[in-house]
Amino acid sequence: MPISASVPIHLTRCSISAVTVPPRLESQLTIPVDLGDRSYPIVIGSGHTAAENDGLKSHFAQTLGDASHGVMIVDKAVSQTAGTSIQAALNGSLDRIDVIEVASGEGSKSIDQLASLWNQLLEAGTDRRSVVIAVGGGVIGDLAGFAAATFTRGLRFVQVPTTLLAMVDSSVGGKTGINLPGGKNLVGSFWQPHLVWIDTDFLNTLPDREYISGLGEVIKYGVIEDADFFDYLDQNIEAIIQRQPEPVQQAVAKSCQSKARVVAEDERETTGRRAILNYGHTFAHAIEVNAGYGVMLHGEAVSIGMQMAARLALDLGLCDSQLLDRQTRLLEAAQLPLTWADADVDAMIPVMARDKKVEHGKLRFVLPDRIGHVDLVGDVPVEKVRTAINACR
Amino acid sequence: MPISASVPIHLTRCSISAVTVPPRLESQLTIPVDLGDRSYPIVIGSGHTAAENDGLKSHFAQTLGDASHGVMIVDKAVSQTAGTSIQAALNGSLDRIDVIEVASGEGSKSIDQLASLWNQLLEAGTDRRSVVIAVGGGVIGDLAGFAAATFTRGLRFVQVPTTLLAMVDSSVGGKTGINLPGGKNLVGSFWQPHLVWIDTDFLNTLPDREYISGLGEVIKYGVIEDADFFDYLDQNIEAIIQRQPEPVQQAVAKSCQSKARVVAEDERETTGRRAILNYGHTFAHAIEVNAGYGVMLHGEAVSIGMQMAARLALDLGLCDSQLLDRQTRLLEAAQLPLTWADADVDAMIPVMARDKKVEHGKLRFVLPDRIGHVDLVGDVPVEKVRTAINACR
Repeated sequence: MPISASVPIHLTRCSISAVTVPPRLESQLTIPVDLGDRSYPIVIGSGHTAAENDGLKSHFAQTLGDASHGVMIVDKAVSQTAGTSIQAALNGSLDRIDVIEVASGEGSKSIDQLASLWNQLLEAGTDRRSVVIAVGGGVIGDLAGFAAATFTRGLRFVQVPTTLLAMVDSSVGGKTGINLPGGKNLVGSFWQPHLVWIDTDFLNTLPDREYISGLGEVIKYGVIEDADFFDYLDQNIEAIIQRQPEPVQQAVAKSCQSKARVVAEDERETTGRRAILNYGHTFAHAIEVNAGYGVMLHGEAVSIGMQMAARLALDLGLCDSQLLDRQTRLLEAAQLPLTWADADVDAMIPVMARDKKVEHGKLRFVLPDRIGHVDLVGDVPVEKVRTAINACR
Repeated sequence: MPISASVPIHLTRCSISAVTVPPRLESQLTIPVDLGDRSYPIVIGSGHTAAENDGLKSHFAQTLGDASHGVMIVDKAVSQTAGTSIQAALNGSLDRIDVIEVASGEGSKSIDQLASLWNQLLEAGTDRRSVVIAVGGGVIGDLAGFAAATFTRGLRFVQVPTTLLAMVDSSVGGKTGINLPGGKNLVGSFWQPHLVWIDTDFLNTLPDREYISGLGEVIKYGVIEDADFFDYLDQNIEAIIQRQPEPVQQAVAKSCQSKARVVAEDERETTGRRAILNYGHTFAHAIEVNAGYGVMLHGEAVSIGMQMAARLALDLGLCDSQLLDRQTRLLEAAQLPLTWADADVDAMIPVMARDKKVEHGKLRFVLPDRIGHVDLVGDVPVEKVRTAINACR
């Protein structure tokens, strides 16, 4: 699935500085997610939400032209920035946009917050032709997406991710949901957006820790199914950390392309293929539950989880030590955590046994055999899992 | 879509009394719901859940053979009767069946009850290969179906309706959901069951008022799309009220067949066809909200709602008075209410304006032009709606 460059939309604005700005940044990249009648585009640009462009308006008209009422569900932290930009960019596309602000943080993926959203959608006069526009990180996308999936049994929605983690992972693929006190993402729907709109300029105000966290998922794609991308990251990780526009756009686009490929093969996790996206995640979920929601950022937990998984793979003789070394070096260069001193193996194992990837009580893991390839491995001895966790303390 | 009789399963037990029992009752009727890879059978019998039969076991094996864990979500009122029968009939089909009892009544279709179910499913160790078995009326089917649709983003489920209303309406077609304080069924999913198992013997213990209420939906099918069935009901309504097995089975089967036909044409209410099932329902929902949940039974509200709709159709010149007369006589013979003295038109209109069938604020109704045919009619003047409501007070 090639990345196709659509008509450059910055042409007028950028033509004077064309010599100094890399040409790629003058155009949007459009990555199709191929799901039959649920297909949709991921549109990736830099500064293309600005009011003087009509890129968003034009994509909105193509995919949601008959909508007259929008409800923007926005993270309070970006309401005045990204939220305002999106509203301005959609000026004229809809008769009315209601705005619902949601507090930042994993705590908002709760039953109470969901119930509150449902009631606010009702108060806003939302009906089946309304469109939900989710603006924020993964928490907002998951929560707003699930509200959209379930209000009047399904509303169309647009994902506008504003964090790196949401751009490269949660905004693509249609997984929506909330947490239960007993575990993350235990309740939700597969519900595909009609459009994913990514403006990497939204990353400029992201705190360092949150930006770096997102690189955990980016590196994951290199390990699980794209060795060339892993090499690219190896060579460009410094520039990506410095948020240089061109490598950032490449990293986001390659990640989305990777995710779109996997999702197109296994939309609802029925063939097992989509499970490869969970590399490091069985450990990561247990780390997050063990630490308490919100203590560790998701990408940080994924980074440590990938280290545990790679050590487990090595211990099981599935890969050589070079894989672990290369992964360790890249994660370290990305300034991601590799260990967690407080890991409590006795607390983590029971959480993993409840994980959705567990079938009939057997422990299963996504494990790499080489950079760019992973397998789903069943019947893993619990003792080996304990060793892998303890090796990352 | 013909009703196909499967292999008679009462043969051994009933062969002696074959002369006195109508032959049709010795066999199950299977009605297919044709939805591509979401197709499923509705199996209708009388006494075929009894432990000495293996009908349920055999259908379960065909559709859900790989399941080893079941969670039966059952109305407390039928837990000892239908619930126990189902458990006995499934003996050996599953390694383990957990039972979750839910209080009877519309009040259980609440956010709190849903949240409680999600947590109980987690405690029961439910994973994606588990099967939810909903045993009860429409409330249980809608609630348990929505819990199944959303726990771990989707579990397979079986509908075992125990009320007439659930047998002929809510158990078929995949609409699941809960109520919000501001309106019925405002939150939910389209989520198809894998099997609908109907044993009309479960009706024997149903209170008269509840049984009669279900006839409101049965008669609806005759009005909206099956004039022959309307005639059949006209001629057999006394026997149906007396719960004679043969006409009851016919009434259930014809109703399911009608619903299956409509749902197959428009699974997710996108073409408008499925809206015909809402004949009388825009009024009925407003009546139920106006009266307060649980005061009036759904089928009673539908009966009054159909009368309001027929009066509206007559007033708009869409049908003749004979249609209203025939419908009135049949509903009356079925001992259903035709009017509601407490109808408050000023309270009902705003509820109807929020109804999911309203698009951009216009009032739309499903209205009959002859017995066996209805149309979706838009832009209905509010004044005519008020007149129709007031005519049924």
